[in-house]
Amino acid sequence: MTEAELETYLHEHIPLSRAMDVRVISITDQRVTLGAPLAPNINHRDTVFGGSAASIATLAAWSLLHLRLTNAGLPSRVVIQSSIMDYLAPIAGDFTATATLDGDWDAFLRMLTRKGRGRIALKAALDYEGQKAGQFHGEFVAFGKDRL
Amino acid sequence: MTEAELETYLHEHIPLSRAMDVRVISITDQRVTLGAPLAPNINHRDTVFGGSAASIATLAAWSLLHLRLTNAGLPSRVVIQSSIMDYLAPIAGDFTATATLDGDWDAFLRMLTRKGRGRIALKAALDYEGQKAGQFHGEFVAFGKDRL
Repeated sequence: MTEAELETYLHEHIPLSRAMDVRVISITDQRVTLGAPLAPNINHRDTVFGGSAASIATLAAWSLLHLRLTNAGLPSRVVIQSSIMDYLAPIAGDFTATATLDGDWDAFLRMLTRKGRGRIALKAALDYEGQKAGQFHGEFVAFGKDRL
Repeated sequence: MTEAELETYLHEHIPLSRAMDVRVISITDQRVTLGAPLAPNINHRDTVFGGSAASIATLAAWSLLHLRLTNAGLPSRVVIQSSIMDYLAPIAGDFTATATLDGDWDAFLRMLTRKGRGRIALKAALDYEGQKAGQFHGEFVAFGKDRL
């Protein structure tokens, strides 16, 4: 899946990503980076609303997990179970969220294949002007084909 | 502040709340309940996007803290430091978030008055069709007038 394809998918299926003007900046097997401008995500202090920060981090983590499962030949239903957001600094302009794995991918795939269900953690770093402005940690559960 | 005034404030200053079609359902000194419809908050599984759930919970908690500080004669800059979201069940329709205190209000006000800065926790319950569908816990810091 290309950056443009993922962006179209997000905008078509998750309208809030369109309202936030989320852009897909880069995709590799190891990380997904999404970006968004300040204007549609601004708060009453002229910085990024915390809900927007949590949302773009969630989208980046979900996207990485979805893409890796698809590439592994195991397209699955992916559900978020819990998340932690640490807001480290105010964001006063365009920002990005870069998601990476925060768990054991091989163990996750083994569970998903054997039991039809696997759990894995991902993290995402929010960046603004080269500085880390926030940190997301999410626990996700994937349900294999039998559970779709 | 009335429900209508808070709703106007949110929509004018936090455009994502307008994109989510957030409504202010009720305000008391003890709790703030916000609501939103599914359509603008839907995901690719036809349930509520996790980022929307986190966002409305954050807005409800911030609103309660803002209103209580204003009522106490201590209008302050309120910043979210961290949050935890537990997603308990999928939400397939209109939903609400009800925020309440999760900390010691009097101790918070004493710190804010003495040191110009106080920290307090709030929680918010997400409800869908009378069932609890999610739980939010947020740590907020208020900066008093000297720090504005």
